[in-house]
Amino acid sequence: MRELREKCAVVGVFGVKNAAKYAYLGLYAMQHRGQEATGISVSNGERIATIKKHGLVSMAYDDRMLERAQGSIAIGHNRYSTAGEHTMMDAQPIFARYALGEMAIAHNGNFPTYMKIRKKLIDKGAIFSSSMDTENLIHLVAQSNKTSLRLRILDALGQVEGAYSLLFLSQKELFAARDPHGFRPLSIAKVDGGYMVASETCAFDLAEAEFVRDIEPGEMVVFQEGREPESIHFAKSIPKQCIFEHIYFARPDSFLFGESVYEVRKELGRLLWEEDPIKADMVIPVPDSSIPHAIGYSQASGLPFELGIIRNHYVGRTFIEPTQRIRDLKVKRKLSPIRSLIDGKRLVIVDDSIVRGTTSKKIVSLLKRYGAKEVHMRIASPAIGFPCYYGIDTPHQNELISHSKSTEEIRDYLAADSLCFLSVAALKKAVHSHGDYCLSCFDGRYFHKR
Amino acid sequence: MRELREKCAVVGVFGVKNAAKYAYLGLYAMQHRGQEATGISVSNGERIATIKKHGLVSMAYDDRMLERAQGSIAIGHNRYSTAGEHTMMDAQPIFARYALGEMAIAHNGNFPTYMKIRKKLIDKGAIFSSSMDTENLIHLVAQSNKTSLRLRILDALGQVEGAYSLLFLSQKELFAARDPHGFRPLSIAKVDGGYMVASETCAFDLAEAEFVRDIEPGEMVVFQEGREPESIHFAKSIPKQCIFEHIYFARPDSFLFGESVYEVRKELGRLLWEEDPIKADMVIPVPDSSIPHAIGYSQASGLPFELGIIRNHYVGRTFIEPTQRIRDLKVKRKLSPIRSLIDGKRLVIVDDSIVRGTTSKKIVSLLKRYGAKEVHMRIASPAIGFPCYYGIDTPHQNELISHSKSTEEIRDYLAADSLCFLSVAALKKAVHSHGDYCLSCFDGRYFHKR
Amino acid sequence: MRELREKCAVVGVFGVKNAAKYAYLGLYAMQHRGQEATGISVSNGERIATIKKHGLVSMAYDDRMLERAQGSIAIGHNRYSTAGEHTMMDAQPIFARYALGEMAIAHNGNFPTYMKIRKKLIDKGAIFSSSMDTENLIHLVAQSNKTSLRLRILDALGQVEGAYSLLFLSQKELFAARDPHGFRPLSIAKVDGGYMVASETCAFDLAEAEFVRDIEPGEMVVFQEGREPESIHFAKSIPKQCIFEHIYFARPDSFLFGESVYEVRKELGRLLWEEDPIKADMVIPVPDSSIPHAIGYSQASGLPFELGIIRNHYVGRTFIEPTQRIRDLKVKRKLSPIRSLIDGKRLVIVDDSIVRGTTSKKIVSLLKRYGAKEVHMRIASPAIGFPCYYGIDTPHQNELISHSKSTEEIRDYLAADSLCFLSVAALKKAVHSHGDYCLSCFDGRYFHKR
Amino acid sequence: MRELREKCAVVGVFGVKNAAKYAYLGLYAMQHRGQEATGISVSNGERIATIKKHGLVSMAYDDRMLERAQGSIAIGHNRYSTAGEHTMMDAQPIFARYALGEMAIAHNGNFPTYMKIRKKLIDKGAIFSSSMDTENLIHLVAQSNKTSLRLRILDALGQVEGAYSLLFLSQKELFAARDPHGFRPLSIAKVDGGYMVASETCAFDLAEAEFVRDIEPGEMVVFQEGREPESIHFAKSIPKQCIFEHIYFARPDSFLFGESVYEVRKELGRLLWEEDPIKADMVIPVPDSSIPHAIGYSQASGLPFELGIIRNHYVGRTFIEPTQRIRDLKVKRKLSPIRSLIDGKRLVIVDDSIVRGTTSKKIVSLLKRYGAKEVHMRIASPAIGFPCYYGIDTPHQNELISHSKSTEEIRDYLAADSLCFLSVAALKKAVHSHGDYCLSCFDGRYFHKR
Repeated sequence: MRELREKCAVVGVFGVKNAAKYAYLGLYAMQHRGQEATGISVSNGERIATIKKHGLVSMAYDDRMLERAQGSIAIGHNRYSTAGEHTMMDAQPIFARYALGEMAIAHNGNFPTYMKIRKKLIDKGAIFSSSMDTENLIHLVAQSNKTSLRLRILDALGQVEGAYSLLFLSQKELFAARDPHGFRPLSIAKVDGGYMVASETCAFDLAEAEFVRDIEPGEMVVFQEGREPESIHFAKSIPKQCIFEHIYFARPDSFLFGESVYEVRKELGRLLWEEDPIKADMVIPVPDSSIPHAIGYSQASGLPFELGIIRNHYVGRTFIEPTQRIRDLKVKRKLSPIRSLIDGKRLVIVDDSIVRGTTSKKIVSLLKRYGAKEVHMRIASPAIGFPCYYGIDTPHQNELISHSKSTEEIRDYLAADSLCFLSVAALKKAVHSHGDYCLSCFDGRYFHKR
Repeated sequence: MRELREKCAVVGVFGVKNAAKYAYLGLYAMQHRGQEATGISVSNGERIATIKKHGLVSMAYDDRMLERAQGSIAIGHNRYSTAGEHTMMDAQPIFARYALGEMAIAHNGNFPTYMKIRKKLIDKGAIFSSSMDTENLIHLVAQSNKTSLRLRILDALGQVEGAYSLLFLSQKELFAARDPHGFRPLSIAKVDGGYMVASETCAFDLAEAEFVRDIEPGEMVVFQEGREPESIHFAKSIPKQCIFEHIYFARPDSFLFGESVYEVRKELGRLLWEEDPIKADMVIPVPDSSIPHAIGYSQASGLPFELGIIRNHYVGRTFIEPTQRIRDLKVKRKLSPIRSLIDGKRLVIVDDSIVRGTTSKKIVSLLKRYGAKEVHMRIASPAIGFPCYYGIDTPHQNELISHSKSTEEIRDYLAADSLCFLSVAALKKAVHSHGDYCLSCFDGRYFHKR
Repeated sequence: MRELREKCAVVGVFGVKNAAKYAYLGLYAMQHRGQEATGISVSNGERIATIKKHGLVSMAYDDRMLERAQGSIAIGHNRYSTAGEHTMMDAQPIFARYALGEMAIAHNGNFPTYMKIRKKLIDKGAIFSSSMDTENLIHLVAQSNKTSLRLRILDALGQVEGAYSLLFLSQKELFAARDPHGFRPLSIAKVDGGYMVASETCAFDLAEAEFVRDIEPGEMVVFQEGREPESIHFAKSIPKQCIFEHIYFARPDSFLFGESVYEVRKELGRLLWEEDPIKADMVIPVPDSSIPHAIGYSQASGLPFELGIIRNHYVGRTFIEPTQRIRDLKVKRKLSPIRSLIDGKRLVIVDDSIVRGTTSKKIVSLLKRYGAKEVHMRIASPAIGFPCYYGIDTPHQNELISHSKSTEEIRDYLAADSLCFLSVAALKKAVHSHGDYCLSCFDGRYFHKR
Repeated sequence: MRELREKCAVVGVFGVKNAAKYAYLGLYAMQHRGQEATGISVSNGERIATIKKHGLVSMAYDDRMLERAQGSIAIGHNRYSTAGEHTMMDAQPIFARYALGEMAIAHNGNFPTYMKIRKKLIDKGAIFSSSMDTENLIHLVAQSNKTSLRLRILDALGQVEGAYSLLFLSQKELFAARDPHGFRPLSIAKVDGGYMVASETCAFDLAEAEFVRDIEPGEMVVFQEGREPESIHFAKSIPKQCIFEHIYFARPDSFLFGESVYEVRKELGRLLWEEDPIKADMVIPVPDSSIPHAIGYSQASGLPFELGIIRNHYVGRTFIEPTQRIRDLKVKRKLSPIRSLIDGKRLVIVDDSIVRGTTSKKIVSLLKRYGAKEVHMRIASPAIGFPCYYGIDTPHQNELISHSKSTEEIRDYLAADSLCFLSVAALKKAVHSHGDYCLSCFDGRYFHKR
């Protein structure tokens, strides 16, 4: 059950006719990483044109629009849902005219200390029109005294700290950079004689691009006409990749940080069983995100896998409630347990994570009302006790149920018969980690100066 | 993979304050039965007000609209997607003023011989503004010389032939009728001191209504103020219930024709294995509709169940293709196989049915390109060789691949390593049928005068 | 100042390629007769297609839509603004399939006794889906036992009473009929080898059609392929043409009932002066509708004509008021007096009519606050004491200020320095009437059985 | 006939509860100065919130929106129609966070040499996201090293050259400045204990604000809480006010540069007659903008004023043409001559200006086809031979018909019987000018360094 939210997807295309259409395909495949707004900037070698729209990729663009957006270099961005007044201003790519011409920028990640730099920039006379941390970067590039965009970007990256998979578009070039910790993913593929860069490999599959490799932490790749892509290692690589990409952000068909997302999730489910085996009649995922974990749990435990909760995919933004109070309606409109299946049964419910705990509580309540004899919650990640500063929209620390409550206290709150979080050790085992993953939301150890 | 389309959902509410909101909940839960248009008619005892809108239930209504639609009796309708110019005119409920006052009607089903009756009505001076077969019925009621709506409805039903689960709303009463063969489902529940009638029981679960029973084939139930619902058996019951409701129309959490849809589907999967066991590495459903069948297959065969194809739920109406040709794009935008999982593997692919075969062919092609060593198609229904006249929107007979091709020819066309349809015998076994199901799309034996 | 509202415009086109586009031009020119909804029905000789839309003609149609509406016969309709729930259902043309094929109908006018006929029709089994009186007519045609549409229309017209300029479209023919009193206008023109019929001649000017003649009261003209238009006098002509078409409904550039609208209005203004000359500094129209009347007044009186009140044409439906109360805001948002012009001056204000008197009161108040020394209201029509049953949307009789108040009482209510209505005698003189105009809103003498 | 287009309207409100609603009223009244986009920025003392929308004021805002925009200081802007891709980015007010907090800016006018300053700003590292010249100013303010916004604005204004009526909103203050030449108008009024500033006084009339005075050329007025408005004369006043505001931009009920717009226009008409009297049957304005000029002409000449051309106010953006060619359709859809009035007559047609001449040519052609015996064009302004750099959207110099053609050549092109432009001397007389008006579009003498 998705309760956390990723901070976007980026895609870049270089050296392909109708680059905007490839960017569109990439954004289409990565819609799960952001549904609020979407944008594409295209360069025709002379000028950069930008389209930004609210809503889904499938609704935002039309054929005529992308036909007119001629050019062989493009970047695109999907933005996740935020509340707030300035949403359109906060859409990306951000475009600017500056000393060396035109540029556009698309960013996946977060700069936790951006207000410090913003203050400095403002003191120097910079103006800010959005509340996006990304806006800092465009000023740092514009104010750099270096003579090429490449050098200015490196100059700018030297001054920021945090999580970024960044794409810069100039009239002639495409730059793709990943922060030294590599918090967020970014990969390269070949397509139709040119190149594609994307947050997730599922973007390549739709466009029939051939995966080449991940951009490394602390690496920037420069795409220029008539040359091979050039690799610049601008900082020492100290990988701290986001483990939650594997736990639930990425699409299961993506290949991420060298691993199959689907296989990692099944392994998480398997280890969940191994760490705390329990007697039950069946294992049921909270759909859709926890299905692979539950399959792994089922295969390890031998308990039958059942799709005992049906997900309604026609859920819209608004929902009208009758006058009389209907219990758990907010959860029920999305999730429908199969009454005849669970009645009188002992259930293992596999979910990927618990954030505030409110939804989990309603799920347990609903299952019990529909007749479940026992409900055993199994969470395919450790307890989240700390907020993320690297690109995930976590609630305030005191809203995180695991920040203040023990596992037993949470079980009690959920009214579940048992509750088990996956251990950090098991999590690391599942991704074959040798310390190259960020676990700060579990242990509160951060990687930036505060 | 849904290639056939159902002809709608109906819901009725009686004796509940804010009946329109309960109708809304029912339509919301039954969105899978029709996404093109939706409508609700409400009576406040004096007048009937009607709202009709294009698009999804979650977008069509707003709170203010339903607040104003005061009244304790309501009917609602979801309409499936049709091409055509007069779509709004063809939305339901249909409203009319006639000799006894006002009425509205909502219909799930089909009258195969409606043009004959329409001709007669037209000869008598009736005018028709839509192309809906349902419009006949409202004329038959209006032209009846009976003295009450109840008698007029019975008079009208005596003149029509075909599949119908019908709701009539007058200023004071609600009538719910099911045709003598009971082709389409219709059930009753209790809610908040009143009643709810719906095509599927999943509507009851959302509204916290308590399932009472199915309306029987050939039965009409009359809901009137101050009385218990009255049952009228207006024709001999000769059940020929639609087997495809179980195979894939209904939501898996619905309880249909006395059976759990989810359990029937798992049983179809189990029998599919028993009828033709095969060696393979894993069983993969074509999501989402075939997941329960594949779970049953997996449990029967012992082959691991894998969600090897990911479904993209952000698919919109339009899709922009790049200039260069990308293979299988129309299928790929919806379905994404997990490359690392299937590479080099022998796959059993479970799908609920094959209609034209074009999508199946693309799925096989895509799986093979992604590395599948063998692809064994297992179809959880018999070969569809004949069109449906009872409420399913099947293509012309000569577009049905099973009409002209043998199983071996189809396998050859799909380029699959093997192909197996479920036998009719196994299908009947799964639903414990003693001849009470309609199998006309498999055997071409119809139940109306042609 | 328009306070009354006309009941629509109709246009017909026959024998012209792309007839829908000519209908569009006609509706575009006659937008002032109805802004709520617009519709066009086109026949391609085989089938009738219908487009209906809310809003203005310039927004409702697009080129692609009209290109696809192939056919050489068309009718169109503009509908005026009504409150109410069923507005779309109440748009025209009304389409129906009936015994002789397909037909569409567009109606300008009103059937004051339609409920009597509707009752009879309903008793015979007819159903009604709208609240439009026009719907009766389509049933009368459909239920007629005559063998051709022509005879059926005549049959139907023989049964109704009231005001109608009616267009009937069949797959092959166009019929244009005007009621025996000729309440509403209807004229014929030649265009591009075919014919055009319209409520007002301004429609012809835009389409470069050449005015031929008015259809006479009690006449129906039949347009058929390969023949000259055929004239049928189906009832004795007893002309009672709507005088308010001249006073303010029609566009000043139209030629109506044999007179120039502009010249009639100037004459009304001239006679207004002659009937009650007054000393003043200037004459000012309430724009835009009263400008011609004020020009006439100025020319007769020698008082200078001044555009002393400016009309804001950007007025939308909604208007947001500040918290603090601003006086006369509802009038001020539309009408802005020129302060420097009127300050200290004696003004003659010419308006076409007074209905409720509320707007006039605000105008007087505003002018006085802006410094006017004297305000003399001159109304270019007699006092309206009775509602219209023939196609004008007048308020209830007790809302008509002239129903209960004398001229002096009204003057007092308006706080004007003097007030003068035009006499009926002068009005008749201005249109050279020999009893052939309807004056029922002034004298309460109606022309139908009540 | 409006062929030139103004560059916007600005409104400011200070010290009034619900300031946004007063800004709305002002923008509503000044809709004629810009219909493409509209925006309001409001400060609640702590933060500035901004709403920007495409389209008309009456459509853009709703009550809820303005209710939420709490605050007692606001600025607003209407933008005129431009083609181009970045229209939304180019809407105003422009908002920015900078060293001293937040600010928003609204600008009416034009900086003819803004590219020079932009280059300097870019060289210093500024980025530009729009193509608006106004964006320079916000950078100049942000980069100033002065310690208060007041001083920074003055610093910035010292560096720019051109036409500006500017409003700056900070969290606590409102600044209203007019360039040293005072090209564009800007006036102050009192309202409900606070102040209102607007491009035109018609904004005050709607809001019931009491006109105080014009802001002087080279003056900035500072509105701060608890103090009287403070006047700063930041540059020597060398008035070169836009004469075209009087000729046709302003609304006739506005009081502009110390004169009544309506009276000036009548005087232009009077002088037009005096400079070249001619025998004719009537004088007809090209509506609506030339009505006051024609009234003046009529009063001076004694020729009867006739509204011989009717303007259609329901004209939308798009217009569908039939297949067959209809002459002058683009003009005819807006302007309809009254055939019966002009047939056989000698007409004086009064228009406010001629830009390209194409519309005038069509008007003459149309009048002749409708029977006019003679058409004498009288233009209430001198020949426009030069483009405007101070806020009017004139076409390229070589599209101005008066740039390359003599009056006689233009008359020949128009096929008019005579043509007369008003002399510059008469124009100056009408506005009582002692050199304080800009006449650069007539004489090509500009007031900035090129």
